[in-house]
Amino acid sequence: MKLVFASSNSHKINEIKKLLPENIELLGLNDIECFDEIPETAETIEGNAILKADYITQKYGYNCFADDSGLEINALGGKPGVYSARYAGEPRDDNKNINKVLAELENQSDRGANFKTVICLNLNGHQYLFTGIIDGNITQERKGSNGFGYDPIFVPDGYDETFAQMAFEEKNQISHRAKAVMQMIDFFEKKSI
Amino acid sequence: MKLVFASSNSHKINEIKKLLPENIELLGLNDIECFDEIPETAETIEGNAILKADYITQKYGYNCFADDSGLEINALGGKPGVYSARYAGEPRDDNKNINKVLAELENQSDRGANFKTVICLNLNGHQYLFTGIIDGNITQERKGSNGFGYDPIFVPDGYDETFAQMAFEEKNQISHRAKAVMQMIDFFEKKSI
Repeated sequence: MKLVFASSNSHKINEIKKLLPENIELLGLNDIECFDEIPETAETIEGNAILKADYITQKYGYNCFADDSGLEINALGGKPGVYSARYAGEPRDDNKNINKVLAELENQSDRGANFKTVICLNLNGHQYLFTGIIDGNITQERKGSNGFGYDPIFVPDGYDETFAQMAFEEKNQISHRAKAVMQMIDFFEKKSI
Repeated sequence: MKLVFASSNSHKINEIKKLLPENIELLGLNDIECFDEIPETAETIEGNAILKADYITQKYGYNCFADDSGLEINALGGKPGVYSARYAGEPRDDNKNINKVLAELENQSDRGANFKTVICLNLNGHQYLFTGIIDGNITQERKGSNGFGYDPIFVPDGYDETFAQMAFEEKNQISHRAKAVMQMIDFFEKKSI
C-alpha cells in the first residue's frame, strides 16, 4: 500500500519509513510531485493536521498522514499552541518566540506546560488522530543549544535538563512527536494488543 | 482480556461493549468496586482523559480507557475547552454555561467552534490517545431540547440543525464522541487496514 507523509523533510520521512511495516510504501510530498504551499490555517493543532492530510487525500487520492505540533502553556490558557511557530509574528523566529513566552511568564509561578503532536491519518476513508503529549515546565532562562523551537526553555517531567540540553537521540525517544508516531506505528502493526 | 472503562454510566458502557471484539470483557467502575471521585484537575481535555485512565491503571492494575470532552470556540481562544462542564462555576449548570457563552459571543461574527472527545487507552504498558472532532458553529440562540450541555447552540458543519434538534441516534452517529470511539474500536479490530 502506498502511504503519503505530508512532509518534504527527508529526515522525518526516513525516520518513519524505518518503523512502518514492509508492506507500506511511504512517499513524501516530493515523491508525488506536490510542491504546493499546503494550508495551515486552522485554529487548533488537530485542525492543522487534519487540513494537511485532507489536502493531499482530496487532491491526490492517496492515503496520507500529516502532523502538527505546538507548546501549550497552562498559565497562558494553552498558548502559544497552534501559533507556536509564529507566536512573535512572521517570519518564524525561534529567538523572538522564546523571548515573548519568557516575558509573558515573568513573575508567574505556574510554569507548567506540555508539548503536543497530533498526527492525522486518512486511511481508506477513515480518519484517525493520534496524539503524543509530554508534560513539563518552562525554565526561567534558556539552557542548551540542541534542538529547535522552544526546546531551550522546556524541561520534561522526570528530567532536569531542557530538550535543548539533551542529545538528539534522547529527546527523540521521549518526545511528544515520538509518542504520536509510535501510536500510529502500533496501529499499523497492532503489536501491543 | 479484561478492560475497564472509567465510567459508571451503564448506558455508555453498554454502548461500547456492543462494539468491542468478543474476546474483550468490558468492565465499568462499579464492576471493579471503584467508587472514588477520580481526579479531573488537568488543564487540557487530553490531560483529564490521561489522569482518569492512569488513576485506574495505577490503583487497580487494569488495562483501562477513559474519555473527556469539551467545546472549543475559536473566538474565545479555545474556551471553554476543558472547563466546558463548569464554565459558569460550580455546580454544573448547562443553562448558565450556555448563557455565558452566548454573552461572550455577542456581536462576534466568528461563531466557529468544535466539539472534541479524547479517549486515553492504557493497554499493556502503552498509552494511546484517540481524538474525535466535529466542527461547527455556535447559534445566536438556543434551538432544540434533546441532548445536554451545549447541544442547543451547536450546529455541526453540513447540517442546519443543532445537536439538540437532532434525534439521539443521529447525533450519536456523527458526534465527536462517536468518532473517538470508532478510532479505538478500529484499533482493536484493525478492520480498515
